[in-house]
Amino acid sequence: MVFILNPNVPKEKIDKFISDWEQKGFSTIYSVGTEHTAVCLIGNTAEVDMDHIVQTNEIVSYGKRITEQYKAVNRSVHEGGTIIRVGSAVVGEGYFTVISGPCSVESKEQICEIARSVKDSGAKILRGGAFKPRTSPYAFQGKQEEGLEMLRIAKKETGLPVVSEIMNQTQIDLFEDIDIVQVGARNMQNFDLLKAVGALKKPVLLKRGLANTIEELLMSAEYIVSAGNNQVILCERGIRTFETMTRNTLDLSAVVILKQKSHLPVIADPSHAAGIRSLVAPLSKAALAVGADGLMIETHNDPAKALCDGAQSLDLKQFHNLMEELKIRAAVEKKEM
Amino acid sequence: MVFILNPNVPKEKIDKFISDWEQKGFSTIYSVGTEHTAVCLIGNTAEVDMDHIVQTNEIVSYGKRITEQYKAVNRSVHEGGTIIRVGSAVVGEGYFTVISGPCSVESKEQICEIARSVKDSGAKILRGGAFKPRTSPYAFQGKQEEGLEMLRIAKKETGLPVVSEIMNQTQIDLFEDIDIVQVGARNMQNFDLLKAVGALKKPVLLKRGLANTIEELLMSAEYIVSAGNNQVILCERGIRTFETMTRNTLDLSAVVILKQKSHLPVIADPSHAAGIRSLVAPLSKAALAVGADGLMIETHNDPAKALCDGAQSLDLKQFHNLMEELKIRAAVEKKEM
Amino acid sequence: MVFILNPNVPKEKIDKFISDWEQKGFSTIYSVGTEHTAVCLIGNTAEVDMDHIVQTNEIVSYGKRITEQYKAVNRSVHEGGTIIRVGSAVVGEGYFTVISGPCSVESKEQICEIARSVKDSGAKILRGGAFKPRTSPYAFQGKQEEGLEMLRIAKKETGLPVVSEIMNQTQIDLFEDIDIVQVGARNMQNFDLLKAVGALKKPVLLKRGLANTIEELLMSAEYIVSAGNNQVILCERGIRTFETMTRNTLDLSAVVILKQKSHLPVIADPSHAAGIRSLVAPLSKAALAVGADGLMIETHNDPAKALCDGAQSLDLKQFHNLMEELKIRAAVEKKEM
Amino acid sequence: MVFILNPNVPKEKIDKFISDWEQKGFSTIYSVGTEHTAVCLIGNTAEVDMDHIVQTNEIVSYGKRITEQYKAVNRSVHEGGTIIRVGSAVVGEGYFTVISGPCSVESKEQICEIARSVKDSGAKILRGGAFKPRTSPYAFQGKQEEGLEMLRIAKKETGLPVVSEIMNQTQIDLFEDIDIVQVGARNMQNFDLLKAVGALKKPVLLKRGLANTIEELLMSAEYIVSAGNNQVILCERGIRTFETMTRNTLDLSAVVILKQKSHLPVIADPSHAAGIRSLVAPLSKAALAVGADGLMIETHNDPAKALCDGAQSLDLKQFHNLMEELKIRAAVEKKEM
Repeated sequence: MVFILNPNVPKEKIDKFISDWEQKGFSTIYSVGTEHTAVCLIGNTAEVDMDHIVQTNEIVSYGKRITEQYKAVNRSVHEGGTIIRVGSAVVGEGYFTVISGPCSVESKEQICEIARSVKDSGAKILRGGAFKPRTSPYAFQGKQEEGLEMLRIAKKETGLPVVSEIMNQTQIDLFEDIDIVQVGARNMQNFDLLKAVGALKKPVLLKRGLANTIEELLMSAEYIVSAGNNQVILCERGIRTFETMTRNTLDLSAVVILKQKSHLPVIADPSHAAGIRSLVAPLSKAALAVGADGLMIETHNDPAKALCDGAQSLDLKQFHNLMEELKIRAAVEKKEM
Repeated sequence: MVFILNPNVPKEKIDKFISDWEQKGFSTIYSVGTEHTAVCLIGNTAEVDMDHIVQTNEIVSYGKRITEQYKAVNRSVHEGGTIIRVGSAVVGEGYFTVISGPCSVESKEQICEIARSVKDSGAKILRGGAFKPRTSPYAFQGKQEEGLEMLRIAKKETGLPVVSEIMNQTQIDLFEDIDIVQVGARNMQNFDLLKAVGALKKPVLLKRGLANTIEELLMSAEYIVSAGNNQVILCERGIRTFETMTRNTLDLSAVVILKQKSHLPVIADPSHAAGIRSLVAPLSKAALAVGADGLMIETHNDPAKALCDGAQSLDLKQFHNLMEELKIRAAVEKKEM
Repeated sequence: MVFILNPNVPKEKIDKFISDWEQKGFSTIYSVGTEHTAVCLIGNTAEVDMDHIVQTNEIVSYGKRITEQYKAVNRSVHEGGTIIRVGSAVVGEGYFTVISGPCSVESKEQICEIARSVKDSGAKILRGGAFKPRTSPYAFQGKQEEGLEMLRIAKKETGLPVVSEIMNQTQIDLFEDIDIVQVGARNMQNFDLLKAVGALKKPVLLKRGLANTIEELLMSAEYIVSAGNNQVILCERGIRTFETMTRNTLDLSAVVILKQKSHLPVIADPSHAAGIRSLVAPLSKAALAVGADGLMIETHNDPAKALCDGAQSLDLKQFHNLMEELKIRAAVEKKEM
Repeated sequence: MVFILNPNVPKEKIDKFISDWEQKGFSTIYSVGTEHTAVCLIGNTAEVDMDHIVQTNEIVSYGKRITEQYKAVNRSVHEGGTIIRVGSAVVGEGYFTVISGPCSVESKEQICEIARSVKDSGAKILRGGAFKPRTSPYAFQGKQEEGLEMLRIAKKETGLPVVSEIMNQTQIDLFEDIDIVQVGARNMQNFDLLKAVGALKKPVLLKRGLANTIEELLMSAEYIVSAGNNQVILCERGIRTFETMTRNTLDLSAVVILKQKSHLPVIADPSHAAGIRSLVAPLSKAALAVGADGLMIETHNDPAKALCDGAQSLDLKQFHNLMEELKIRAAVEKKEM
């Protein structure tokens, strides 16, 4: 059950409202959205007389029962959708925000050259992998902390906010200067990590696992939001199917359903989904058309020499051309890019 | 191996060229495309000296080795893409052709009302199921031959060419007045049916099976084209995955790859893929953006009372609105709608 | 709803019972099983007072409501399981019946040599493909009618009943001397073919489609049984998954569930599921242990030279050894082999 | 490349052999197996003259090139298979070791009652979840450290070695008294956790992820073994497919392939795979028949009241009966139980 509060209710009254429920044995999630604030009740709400509360409690505007298992991320809590601001970038409805950068940060020069170029092309957020989850223990594992430092330099030089993938909760402190913490597909159900990033005051980019359902993705987001962090960006990045001509199958229907079911922003990652460069541009346009709030696209200044995933990376010129194409289409969709 | 012929070669010379190869033990496929004609050799071409033939044979413009298993449907045979004309409709590159109509033809009034309306909205081809493949023997199996007759009436009244699904090769004669014969997903590897429609002189709409790879779809198309019918329209309609929130998972990456690998037109069917009405519009826009040559969309004058698949059918007003949205986007993609 | 009839009820009384229901608008399926006969009602049975009928109708022993969509194949109709007799072979509970032979019949000598050998090893039924469904139009398509003739010769020579795959309903007459008609995985939802084999008076071996659910398999069997043919053998042969080290994934859980839900015999085909010779023996033992009523195993007198699927075929010695191992285990499972 | 060493080589000579390779830029993995010891070279071994080394180096018995990506877990390293001893239990070829216990430890009484009973029935290792990975943040998350303490009590009382699931590497110290550390399906590619358990001197039970290939499972095991811990037990526990009648699809073919490709023991978990009690016994027998080295089976003294996964748990009597059935079959397979 969620109660949407009236505007401008003093904080004490909200605190009182919350503590009253908690004394009755419910858990609560306090959620400040773009348009209003809400309080979710978690527990056995079957016997709560919602209408009575709406009529008698002066701070409550209206209430809704939430039958889905995901409560705090439910669209009902913030019908208007959540807008996330990070540095100069905005992610959420009305915007189409492109995150770009290399699979792996390789050197200061590499990341800065890419950062300047993708910024010029219109990317709003810089991505760069420092810790790389690799199937083989013998494969390049990323530049690690050094990679994060290079990313910080690129951020300083270009002003772009940065996102990088965290591998586990012991690394939280290393990500202090990283604007958005990415939880990768393999960690989507690493629940301790979800709780840890739920305690942060910064946005989390949560990728769908390769074999995880839409509902499981929402439940993982619920871990983060119920731990106190409302700033979650969901990311569809392809699922495992029997098809072998693409690395994974980008599930654009999932983008639509996620937007319908949740107030959180949803982006797509066509680079990892397809694993093939020539699919990135068409899938990017499709993601925009289907209603995604943005994209995460891998770029490299020299894809042929990339230490990781070069086959799916656009070069800087290709990325520039794609961005020009996307801008025309974002205008049609009435989205700011 | 494919030989692209020079323009305006007399038919006798081509016949001679073909019979020479067949005497050497090769099979040949003669393929008249929009831009040129081609002859594919099937057999052990490893020892054929292609360059020598190109240099010495006056009717040959150039040749290409085809390493893929699919030969006659290979992009190499008609780099410019195949354009299929059916009545007033055109399907192929440069066009975005929408096929619409009910899952099942239910009555003369129903199909005619829908036909008039979707035509007004911009649909170029009318669909209507007469023989319905149903999982349960106790479910409505379609109006059968009567349904085909109703479809013919709607065609006569509106001038729209019509498409309907064939269940097996014994029905070929029943489809004489049907402009496009649809081979459904469950029949994608019904090879005798493929050979039978390969003998027709009319377009075939070939749907991808629920568990069939992109390559298998191309091989099934190869059955039709190698039997002599070059007019095949491929249709992505969703594949089976672990996700349960949608009926199937629309694989838009497949559209891109099919367009890259084959010269045949490719359309998408978002209605059957999603199984949910609210996904049809966003997936339609995404299919256009990704590069599909058209769509197949289920519409009904009264979806709540549809005998079949009502939950995924748009009503006529919803379809009209979607078509308006698509027209704006087709203009951006420089496609005629 | 199913009514189990008393033993030794005169046929006229049963006919009367059935026609009474049909006059009330129900469809009926009359099912003669190993232990009793039953009449299934199809239609809106919600308002039928079952208890009243059981108490007042002298020919009825007891009744059961069937909530599943599959009625005539439901376990409730024949709790004891259906036993199918074909020539000297028996398929059903209490037996473990091995079908063996080549993927494709290649010559009279080949099929007869294999037939003699697998019979000596303990196989009870001979398989041999005459019409082969092949992904590529350029691949060997089987010996066709000639193949069926060779199979008949092997049957005559060894006395083994034979099974071969039918491709479509126009071939029904060709299968007159074939003891068991196989409907292949690609045809599992070829509903016209299912109806056609439902009109036969001989057993049908129905294979699960590569992307079909257990419930869909039962519904396809329902097509056959509701058309009047109770002699259906279900066959699990692997499903499509993301795993690529095996051709398909043999779903032995499906065998258990099929046995629980339906009275029909269930066998497994490890050869096609795995696609690798070295997996056939362990998967065969596992299928026996899990409760399958038999196996279909591909064998060849010279696998290295097989025209089709040699990589998964056992040679005759390997098959013999496997049969010896299976006999020991069948004794433990108290199954006659 | 792997070098199998002669028996009884002094440790200094081995150390010298290893350090020589490392000075040449190779990584090495020193692997002490049941039958011999081996040294794996990781790196560009293409130019290493293996035959020369075998002929000239007195400590080397023979060498093998390993073309697969997984080196240290490769069957080539220990053709005879690895045997793992933990307390009184043995896991590996020649044995069929059953691990049993509740999904979640709930109380001292519960775990001790179950422990005594499953020990009497023949289980050799006790399982009990303390930290439970749950899709919903609102679901019971396990008894945590208290649960581990209860497990220690049960171990003390019965003498059974115990296994429990670790959630992340910060918990390593908590598992000091736990005999086998389980890495769950969701953590199969939590590479930091794999490295951490690779530094332990105790067995690790590594479960296959729901969407992970057999090769990825071997690569994850490679993370652990290459970090120095050779005691890895692989566990097949079902994969995600389109089928919905079972929770997951138990892939018994994977057991066979894992045994062929790797020297590590392989067990199966039918409880989690099926999610249905009535499938546990038949799948257990099938796993034994297919060649698994053991099972992990969930049991509960009162499944109807279990805090977690009651629907798939056997009660203690059911488990006892299953064990009796398994013992008969293990004797046939010549495995000690």
